[in-house]
Amino acid sequence: MSWLNEIRWNRDGLIPVIAQDWQTGRILMFAYANRTALALTAEKGTAHYWSRSRNKLWHKGEDSGHYQRIHEIRMDCDEDVVIYVIEQQGGIACHTGRESCFYRKLQGDEWVITDEVLKDPKDIYRNT
Amino acid sequence: MSWLNEIRWNRDGLIPVIAQDWQTGRILMFAYANRTALALTAEKGTAHYWSRSRNKLWHKGEDSGHYQRIHEIRMDCDEDVVIYVIEQQGGIACHTGRESCFYRKLQGDEWVITDEVLKDPKDIYRNT
Repeated sequence: MSWLNEIRWNRDGLIPVIAQDWQTGRILMFAYANRTALALTAEKGTAHYWSRSRNKLWHKGEDSGHYQRIHEIRMDCDEDVVIYVIEQQGGIACHTGRESCFYRKLQGDEWVITDEVLKDPKDIYRNT
Repeated sequence: MSWLNEIRWNRDGLIPVIAQDWQTGRILMFAYANRTALALTAEKGTAHYWSRSRNKLWHKGEDSGHYQRIHEIRMDCDEDVVIYVIEQQGGIACHTGRESCFYRKLQGDEWVITDEVLKDPKDIYRNT
């Protein structure tokens, strides 16, 4: 698949991925994909990543049911970042049980939590 | 500044930064910041980055006039990515003269350009 060859993978063979809500434009999470993950994302229409902490392919939602349906994949001018424009199943992208991983903002000299937990993580991952 | 100590810098002392339009939510660019760049961003209220290609501090807009006024800085759950929510001066974030660096989308097996060039890069950087 030649479109994958246009990507400039980093020294670890990965590309940064920004996941963005297709309707609100909210940035929901940030992760990485390797070649296989990006190919599967395009082929299956659900977001796949490479988990750096677990060192394995990660089909987002495989444990939680919170799959991410792909609406669009975008690439930047340097061919080294992509956006997954997605529909977030369950409305929760973050492992803390929040809609978005970006739930803190800088206020003065402090990071302040602006988003509530929608579901207790214990209930999200109880089957794993 | 203790809020900077909460950041988990990568092995190069950098953090990925997503720049997002404060009104439309569009993702405009992706770059990196080091500690100095992030501190200056918060202090001055305009986006600063670390240019990996030029290996120097980069005050976005210093050459083009296309400064980015900060509305909000957000951090993710892992403390290793931030968002600059910005107002883009001149409406052009990309060095190609487009609003956003993410001007290509995957269509079938091809990356297709969806955004027009708003200003010829030669005219953006003519003084540099």
